[in-house]
Amino acid sequence: MRAIVIDGGVALRRDYADPAKTAGESIVRVRLAGICGTDLELANGYMDFRGVPGHEFVGEVVETANSPMLGRRVVGEINAGCGACRHCAEGLARHCPSRTVLGILGRDGAFAEYLRLPDRNLIALPDAIPDEMGVFVEPLAAAFEIFEQTQIPHNHRVLVLGDGRLGLLVAMTMRAEDYEVTVAGHHPERARVVSIPVVRERALNGLFDVVVDCTGSSPGFMRALELVRPRGTIILKSTAAGSAALNLAPAVINEITMLGSRCGRFAPAIEALASGKIDPRPLISATLPLDDGVRALDETGKSSNLKVLLKIS
Amino acid sequence: MRAIVIDGGVALRRDYADPAKTAGESIVRVRLAGICGTDLELANGYMDFRGVPGHEFVGEVVETANSPMLGRRVVGEINAGCGACRHCAEGLARHCPSRTVLGILGRDGAFAEYLRLPDRNLIALPDAIPDEMGVFVEPLAAAFEIFEQTQIPHNHRVLVLGDGRLGLLVAMTMRAEDYEVTVAGHHPERARVVSIPVVRERALNGLFDVVVDCTGSSPGFMRALELVRPRGTIILKSTAAGSAALNLAPAVINEITMLGSRCGRFAPAIEALASGKIDPRPLISATLPLDDGVRALDETGKSSNLKVLLKIS
Repeated sequence: MRAIVIDGGVALRRDYADPAKTAGESIVRVRLAGICGTDLELANGYMDFRGVPGHEFVGEVVETANSPMLGRRVVGEINAGCGACRHCAEGLARHCPSRTVLGILGRDGAFAEYLRLPDRNLIALPDAIPDEMGVFVEPLAAAFEIFEQTQIPHNHRVLVLGDGRLGLLVAMTMRAEDYEVTVAGHHPERARVVSIPVVRERALNGLFDVVVDCTGSSPGFMRALELVRPRGTIILKSTAAGSAALNLAPAVINEITMLGSRCGRFAPAIEALASGKIDPRPLISATLPLDDGVRALDETGKSSNLKVLLKIS
Repeated sequence: MRAIVIDGGVALRRDYADPAKTAGESIVRVRLAGICGTDLELANGYMDFRGVPGHEFVGEVVETANSPMLGRRVVGEINAGCGACRHCAEGLARHCPSRTVLGILGRDGAFAEYLRLPDRNLIALPDAIPDEMGVFVEPLAAAFEIFEQTQIPHNHRVLVLGDGRLGLLVAMTMRAEDYEVTVAGHHPERARVVSIPVVRERALNGLFDVVVDCTGSSPGFMRALELVRPRGTIILKSTAAGSAALNLAPAVINEITMLGSRCGRFAPAIEALASGKIDPRPLISATLPLDDGVRALDETGKSSNLKVLLKIS
């Protein structure tokens, strides 16, 4: 099959082996896939990943032992746990220590004609959600994860730091949940895309009860420490590859709560999309065919672009 | 008066100006003071502090407009807020943005014959608490602050990372509050001091629900990230001067809650000392006169010592 493959560099391969059917797992023909900042980091060596990247997708089940799912249009929970450990037993397969993660850790991903996931990871997509919305279920679930981890009072001032793909999606989610939210970033014109104020954050130090760091950069975290009020909360929504010079003393002195926050359950995201409460399609900058996947990754890296999609079948 | 003074270097001065009486503030003759890791950091340039360090003390009120306190033996809340801002109004003067902090920020401290603090910062010490225990009220209040910030279920596995002064005091506090607690450090013999197991932490990765970082070093934080389980909590109890190479990606991936934790209310600490629930005196390694204050700072820096006290009057 055709696939975008990371192996030292990144290239389109036309002869990549189809995923083989495995007990308990289904084969999905990928229809549409989304490119995420993590994919760019993987291409740059993060996690030492080798194989097919891509973890945001809508596809169609073409082979499965779970017959009611055959032919269904699906999205897929990206963490595949062992099913036996304490975390899996608690419904937290995404923290299973021996998990694989679609397109990120030990498992080929969605920038290919076919992918394979455990049957239990696949979730049928309601007809009300077109592919162009469904492809956002995974990152939107990551945004909703914030509410699974912490309760933010509705009178709290929330700042989303970073006006990229993830920042705007988190801001849309915050607003959909009735928070008054400000986005801090370098592209005030993006306020039009999400109808949320995008401001430069100079002179806003200490003003926010909650700062969601979506910068994907380590300096972003230090900036968040300045923007949050004493005893406020910073939610860390993005990973940066490698170490950076950080000083945690302000976090101790100001008694900041910092929450690492990653993947979330898909249900709240699917519900928000199906009900129309959130429509992330204004975030789509371009849709390219799989054969242009390498260029699509390049396009994703340009700050003029937000979400770039790959139309695969 | 005599005082230990940081001004580039650290030296005993015999001609340092007595603190002048100011409206709303009292003069305290210092009886006994404790040396803390922060004092060593200040001596090494942390906070660019100039003046008299020292923020753990028991003293006697010798000048005050608040007559019932005259002659009383007291301890003192170290943060002096403006009294007017939102934080002060909420009883959180320790987060007032224009605060001074005894011996740390804009206010001379306790390694001197006299110090000055706002009347409202002084708390009479019950007769049941001798000076040698009372001098621990401030650091013990910082340990109790953990419980003001978060509720830790009693079946949670707690690791205190670091077997220094602060680590052992936090461990004693955790045990007094009925937690099963382990201390990780390099001095297994200290188990005798606190009657709590002190273990080397190899092969304990991911085992703890809560890790309290009392290492005072940035590598300690990265080690805490390895020791805590996914979705666990790290409590940051110590500040390290300057930046260090840190990687927050594991905190995001494992959805760790990190809590910066600093000073606390004195009441729970005084109660625990008065009732005998906690007796920190086994932590005292040496008591030296003020004239030997520079040597006492040196002694505090030796890993063979725990708490070093200055007997001042």
